[in-house]
Amino acid sequence: MSSGNGDLQGPVTLGIDVGGTKVLGLAVDVSGAVVADARVPTPGTRAAQGPEGASKQLVEAMVTVASQLVARVGPSPRSSPLRVGVGVPGLVDDAGILRFAPNLPVEPGFDIAGPLSERLGGLAVVVDNDATSATVGEWAHGAASGASDALMVTLGTGIGGGIVTDGRVMHGTNGFAGEVGHMVVDPAGPVCPCGRRGCWERYASGSGLGRLAREAAHAGRLSAVVSLAQGDPEAVRGEHVTQAALAGDADARAVLEELGWWLALGLANLARIFDPDTIVVGGGLVEAVSLVLEPVRQAFDEMMEGCRQRPRVKVLLATLGERAGAIGAARIALGENRYQAGAPRTR
Amino acid sequence: MSSGNGDLQGPVTLGIDVGGTKVLGLAVDVSGAVVADARVPTPGTRAAQGPEGASKQLVEAMVTVASQLVARVGPSPRSSPLRVGVGVPGLVDDAGILRFAPNLPVEPGFDIAGPLSERLGGLAVVVDNDATSATVGEWAHGAASGASDALMVTLGTGIGGGIVTDGRVMHGTNGFAGEVGHMVVDPAGPVCPCGRRGCWERYASGSGLGRLAREAAHAGRLSAVVSLAQGDPEAVRGEHVTQAALAGDADARAVLEELGWWLALGLANLARIFDPDTIVVGGGLVEAVSLVLEPVRQAFDEMMEGCRQRPRVKVLLATLGERAGAIGAARIALGENRYQAGAPRTR
Repeated sequence: MSSGNGDLQGPVTLGIDVGGTKVLGLAVDVSGAVVADARVPTPGTRAAQGPEGASKQLVEAMVTVASQLVARVGPSPRSSPLRVGVGVPGLVDDAGILRFAPNLPVEPGFDIAGPLSERLGGLAVVVDNDATSATVGEWAHGAASGASDALMVTLGTGIGGGIVTDGRVMHGTNGFAGEVGHMVVDPAGPVCPCGRRGCWERYASGSGLGRLAREAAHAGRLSAVVSLAQGDPEAVRGEHVTQAALAGDADARAVLEELGWWLALGLANLARIFDPDTIVVGGGLVEAVSLVLEPVRQAFDEMMEGCRQRPRVKVLLATLGERAGAIGAARIALGENRYQAGAPRTR
Repeated sequence: MSSGNGDLQGPVTLGIDVGGTKVLGLAVDVSGAVVADARVPTPGTRAAQGPEGASKQLVEAMVTVASQLVARVGPSPRSSPLRVGVGVPGLVDDAGILRFAPNLPVEPGFDIAGPLSERLGGLAVVVDNDATSATVGEWAHGAASGASDALMVTLGTGIGGGIVTDGRVMHGTNGFAGEVGHMVVDPAGPVCPCGRRGCWERYASGSGLGRLAREAAHAGRLSAVVSLAQGDPEAVRGEHVTQAALAGDADARAVLEELGWWLALGLANLARIFDPDTIVVGGGLVEAVSLVLEPVRQAFDEMMEGCRQRPRVKVLLATLGERAGAIGAARIALGENRYQAGAPRTR
């Protein structure tokens, strides 16, 4: 990584990805190369300053990250001032207002772009959903590069989604498209914080993995995993399963395969609906999924088989890791508007 | 309806909708007004002439319909020859080849556009999926008129779907997008002809209604419905339920409400994924759904409530009836290519 701007390809854009634990900022050139990075902890998650204070602290954290990046890449020419893209975990409307963000302690209706732009001396700021940003990142410079119709799911605590159709990023009428995690796949299933039962993210996410593992642990399986959780089946989490599976534990791998089956089920639902050429699986659970990628692909192909005349859909792992969201946010900030963000159409 | 072309608004286009029982053709002007119609039975459904013969007969049926329409609207000027749009029940690829059509007795890989155009003296022919055609019809001239992001489901024997996102019709990488009926909503549910279990169309379609009703009949409910089926619970079909509910039978209405709950469940899944402003429910089951539309809307709104900052999604009944597919096919034939078919963007 360069910390100067000696060998940049074209203008640099800043991308900021707001996560539950950290705010990651990247300076990205038009080839997708990262020329500087900066990060601070996400503020306010344990603070008692109330939602309004939390919103201000979040803006300040973004200002800190952006300022560090500007210091590293140097001043941009007046003729093409820096643009800033921001990806946040929540529903962002067309005006860049955060309408719903259960995982951030901010006020409802939080305007990010206005205050952030003001604090950055009037730089253009474009805000979008974090999963959409990651999708644009992987589409422009990662696993879905060159696809005209791609779908990305980000597996973390829940499941986020981003959709590229006919060479364009789908946003929906309010900007909320891509909420694939709350597709109900079993109406008699476990209750979801959203109020419904059997949402896909109760099965195929990090929290879903923990739930599947605790069920197996209570049934007397998973002794290696339970010992990683200090012998308490109720304390088992997804990380313990991944850790044990990486060490070769067959019971842990069986739980991962169960998660993989649910992952395939939801992906096949979405593939029938969208007809993508590429599906990218990303997010914090990628390492766990990589252990069962072949069974996932096999289950997915079997579920798609009803239509034998259909070309095979590629199911790939994300390649940009934790940087996908910030790289995508930078890319979105480059578009004329966010509906035209991303890679050129391939047809 | 006029049978001449004295008061046409702009050029006339032909739309042909191939159904399981009939081939319906309409001559449509640019305002969406129908200026002539023609229909013949769908050939070959009980014939023993093999798939190749069935394909030829189907083309001849379309030629008959088109010729009748041309005779009624009169010759078009050489400067703007007639264009013909065709909607067919199956997966149609980008080249207009029918790749998968379980409900038509035609050969796999059936090319409709080529032979039909040849038999019609070289007229331009554009082929698309029937549910996509109906969606374009309702979007251009019906219930979804003016929407930038709309979703239509057609409830018949199965469930078809069409998607409009940001003012454009979604086709997917192969042209197969919109297969919403095979979204699995209960992996332990009844087996679907596609090979999976618990597909949405096992619950919220005409065949789903029949299945729900037979379950209720075997459980000793639905006496009025069973008597419509000559006293045989196994002979109960969806039509019997609708007929009894229209006559005021409470048991029949309860089964329709059960169907309505499943309908709402799938629509809420799709609304979370697409973020549409309008959802249109069409197809042969519309009369049945109209009897329980308010409970459907209520269940849908409750399922969407997890996100309180989201504007309400309109759930509307289709307004073009059996003509939606042919009107939409005519409209698709007017586009520069089928990816730009439909109404002008609203933003």
